Amino acid sequence: MAATVTAALLVIGDEILSGRTKDKNIGYIAGYLTDIGIDLREVRIVPDEEEEIVATVNALRVRYSYVFTTGGIGPTHDDITADAVAKAFGVPIGIDERARAMMLERYKPEDLNEARLRMARIPHGADLVDNPISRAPGFKIGNVIVMAGVPAIMQAMLDGVAPTLETGAKMQVEPIDAAGVPEGIYAEGLGAIAKEHAGVTIGSYPSFSAAGFKNQIVVRGKDSAAVSRAVRAVESLLAQLRARAPA
Amino acid sequence: MAATVTAALLVIGDEILSGRTKDKNIGYIAGYLTDIGIDLREVRIVPDEEEEIVATVNALRVRYSYVFTTGGIGPTHDDITADAVAKAFGVPIGIDERARAMMLERYKPEDLNEARLRMARIPHGADLVDNPISRAPGFKIGNVIVMAGVPAIMQAMLDGVAPTLETGAKMQVEPIDAAGVPEGIYAEGLGAIAKEHAGVTIGSYPSFSAAGFKNQIVVRGKDSAAVSRAVRAVESLLAQLRARAPA
Repeated sequence: MAATVTAALLVIGDEILSGRTKDKNIGYIAGYLTDIGIDLREVRIVPDEEEEIVATVNALRVRYSYVFTTGGIGPTHDDITADAVAKAFGVPIGIDERARAMMLERYKPEDLNEARLRMARIPHGADLVDNPISRAPGFKIGNVIVMAGVPAIMQAMLDGVAPTLETGAKMQVEPIDAAGVPEGIYAEGLGAIAKEHAGVTIGSYPSFSAAGFKNQIVVRGKDSAAVSRAVRAVESLLAQLRARAPA
Repeated sequence: MAATVTAALLVIGDEILSGRTKDKNIGYIAGYLTDIGIDLREVRIVPDEEEEIVATVNALRVRYSYVFTTGGIGPTHDDITADAVAKAFGVPIGIDERARAMMLERYKPEDLNEARLRMARIPHGADLVDNPISRAPGFKIGNVIVMAGVPAIMQAMLDGVAPTLETGAKMQVEPIDAAGVPEGIYAEGLGAIAKEHAGVTIGSYPSFSAAGFKNQIVVRGKDSAAVSRAVRAVESLLAQLRARAPA
C-alpha cells in the first residue's frame, strides 16, 4: 500500500471570519484531495494578519506533507500572504521575472502598475503555479502551495499543481443509507462493528429536515477488501434491526 | 467603547475533511457572532480523534474569550467530543441527571438505551445548552460551548446560549461596490486610505464569473464615525478613478 500523504488547508481572510463571504473552497479542496489520494487532516481559517499567517504556516508545514493556502495574493494592501509565507520560510521576496512575464501576457506594459506588480512578488526559491484565468500566479515553496481565494482561479491552480504532488492510496468511501433505523438503535451494534474492523473508520451522519432525521453510515478505508467486509457487516446489522422494528 | 470579545470555532468531523459533507455551520456562526458583537478570530476543522480535539480545545480556550465547537455529540462510537472536552478540562464525565430528564421528554424510559444515554454524558461542572429539536443537550464548560453538528440543532443551541454570553461593540460593516474600476487601478489609492484611517480595516474582495471580475470594497470598524469617514474617502477615490477612465 502506498504511503499516506497528508495535507492541511489554511484559508486566509477576514471576510470569511466576519461571515460576509461564505467560503466555497474548503469543501472543494477537501473532495479534490481525497479523490487524488491526499488526506486532508486539518483546516484553519485565520485573519489577514501577518503574524497569524506566519505562525500558522510554520505550525502546519512541519506536521503535514503539504499545506495549501487560499486568499490574500491580489494587488491590494490587504493581500499579504506572499510576504507572510516568505517570512515563515525566512527567505527574501521580490518581483519574480517569470511572474512579470506571465502578467505581461495579460497587461500592457503601461498598465502593469506598482499595485499589479505586487502580484509578481514571489518568495525566493518558489516554483510558480499557473493562473490561466487572470495570469497572476500562485506559487509553491517547500511543501506549501499558495493559491488565490477566488474559487474559479483556485480550482485552476489546483488542477495545475496536482500532477506535481506525491499522492498515497486513495480512500475508498462507501455510504450506506440507514433509512428506517434511528441512530440510537443502531449505535451499539455499529460501535461493535467499528471495534472489530481495524483499518477502516465508520461514521454515522445524521441530517435533519422537516421530514425528521435521515441517517447515513459511511465506511472509509484504503484497503478495499476491508471496506467491503465492514460494509457487509453494517448492512447485515441494519437488516436485522429493520426486521425487528415494529411494523 | 465596550471591550473586545473574541471567539474561535472548532468544527469536529472527518466527514467535513473528506469533502463528503459540505460544512454549513462556519458561515452561519461567523455572521451570527459578528451580529451580536463577538469577533470570530479563528476557525479550525479537525478529525474525530480525541488527542486532536483535546489539544485544539486547550490551544484555543486560553487565547479567545469563547470557543464554540460543532459536531460529535450524538449516540454513536464516533461521537467523542464530550469526552475530549472533559479531558481537556481535566474533569470527570458521566450521565448528567438534568440531561437524562431532558431526554425523557422525548424518549420513553424503555427506549432510552445505553447508546442514547451517551448523549446525556456531560463533563462535571458544565451548564447545559437546550436542544429544543431533539432534546439531547449541548453544554458550556468554562468558556467552551459544545454544540451539535446538525445545522438546525446547532442554530437552536446558539439562540439558546447567546443571551448568556458577554458581547462587545458591534462591528460596523460597509460594503462599497467598486464596479467599473479594476482592483489593480484602485489598489494604490486604497492602500493610502487604509494607512490614513486607523481603527478601521479596509478589504478588497474580487469575485469572478463569466462576466469578468466584480470587486467589492468593505470598510469595517467599531467606531461608526471612523467607518463613515473611511467610506467617504473610498467613494471619493472611486469617483475620481471613474472620471479618469476611458469612455
